[in-house]
Amino acid sequence: MNKEEALKLVEAKLHQKRYTHTIGVMETAIHLAKKYGVDEKKAELAAVFHDYAKCMPVDEMERIMVEQNMERDLFHYNKELWHAPVGAYLVEKEVGITDSSILQAIKYHTSGHEEMTMLDKVIYVADYIEPGRNFPGVEEARALAEESLDKAMVYALKHTISFLLERNQAIYPLTFQTYNRFIQQKVEDMK
Amino acid sequence: MNKEEALKLVEAKLHQKRYTHTIGVMETAIHLAKKYGVDEKKAELAAVFHDYAKCMPVDEMERIMVEQNMERDLFHYNKELWHAPVGAYLVEKEVGITDSSILQAIKYHTSGHEEMTMLDKVIYVADYIEPGRNFPGVEEARALAEESLDKAMVYALKHTISFLLERNQAIYPLTFQTYNRFIQQKVEDMK
Repeated sequence: MNKEEALKLVEAKLHQKRYTHTIGVMETAIHLAKKYGVDEKKAELAAVFHDYAKCMPVDEMERIMVEQNMERDLFHYNKELWHAPVGAYLVEKEVGITDSSILQAIKYHTSGHEEMTMLDKVIYVADYIEPGRNFPGVEEARALAEESLDKAMVYALKHTISFLLERNQAIYPLTFQTYNRFIQQKVEDMK
Repeated sequence: MNKEEALKLVEAKLHQKRYTHTIGVMETAIHLAKKYGVDEKKAELAAVFHDYAKCMPVDEMERIMVEQNMERDLFHYNKELWHAPVGAYLVEKEVGITDSSILQAIKYHTSGHEEMTMLDKVIYVADYIEPGRNFPGVEEARALAEESLDKAMVYALKHTISFLLERNQAIYPLTFQTYNRFIQQKVEDMK
């Protein structure tokens, strides 16, 4: 599937603002993929489809999660997490993408997971730093992404957890586990 | 066992500073126990012995953890966590306290756990706010402890996790599980 076909499919699914964000993630993901030797075509496709389910009604996402017997934990945490696994499911079912590395990058682009591939990191980080993002600290995150994907991941995870703590929100276990994994890996690297 | 006997036993195990801290935790725990209708005698004993293993050499704690087949996760996180379960073990073995509610409060006074009893909370909070503590925010924590043990718990857990994040340290799974549990319980309470 070429880029134009892919974009056309997601444009029909997203509000204008979310579509603009998607273009930003796509461009950032291609840049990071080139920089870190990741398959650019896969990065492009994963980025284009990463928010495929973002604008779906919550009850429809919930129906799919129940029907597909998705991870029970998801139901007990922020609904903002749901569009990622539901998106991965629909991108396979409706769009016909079967490459598991692309589907995995979509599935975990909000939570992260403990065994992230370079492609997973490219999509997670691109989503965090794309040009449309303007939260305090985004410039630091962009600078870190030019140095190392792992450093950008740790920055994003720390800030995500802090953001949730400040708002008295529960933290999805995978997010914590991903943070711990990166921290422990860094400690291992220093030994 | 009366208070004087108990204090004599821990005094022999602790450095002066840690012993002074223990007295502070004991007094605060008795105050909180009275306030919240928790057994004062149990609170007193759990507080006196909560740091029983705090001044032990790390390799000796490690030996006991291996020998007693303690939770594998402990080995991969901060050594500061070790004295709590090792302490609970030694307080039973050496001091002869067999009351499981007291041993549990000692075992989880650093990490917390998902099903905390009132006694567990009294010890966790007393350890956090005793008069010798002087970190930024301790006054707020003390004020919250007068309002509600759960509010003080959430405050302490949030600040503990933030402290670790700022220092790029891993977060022990039980700590974030405890945080999530309190947050989700508060959400349930609001329904």
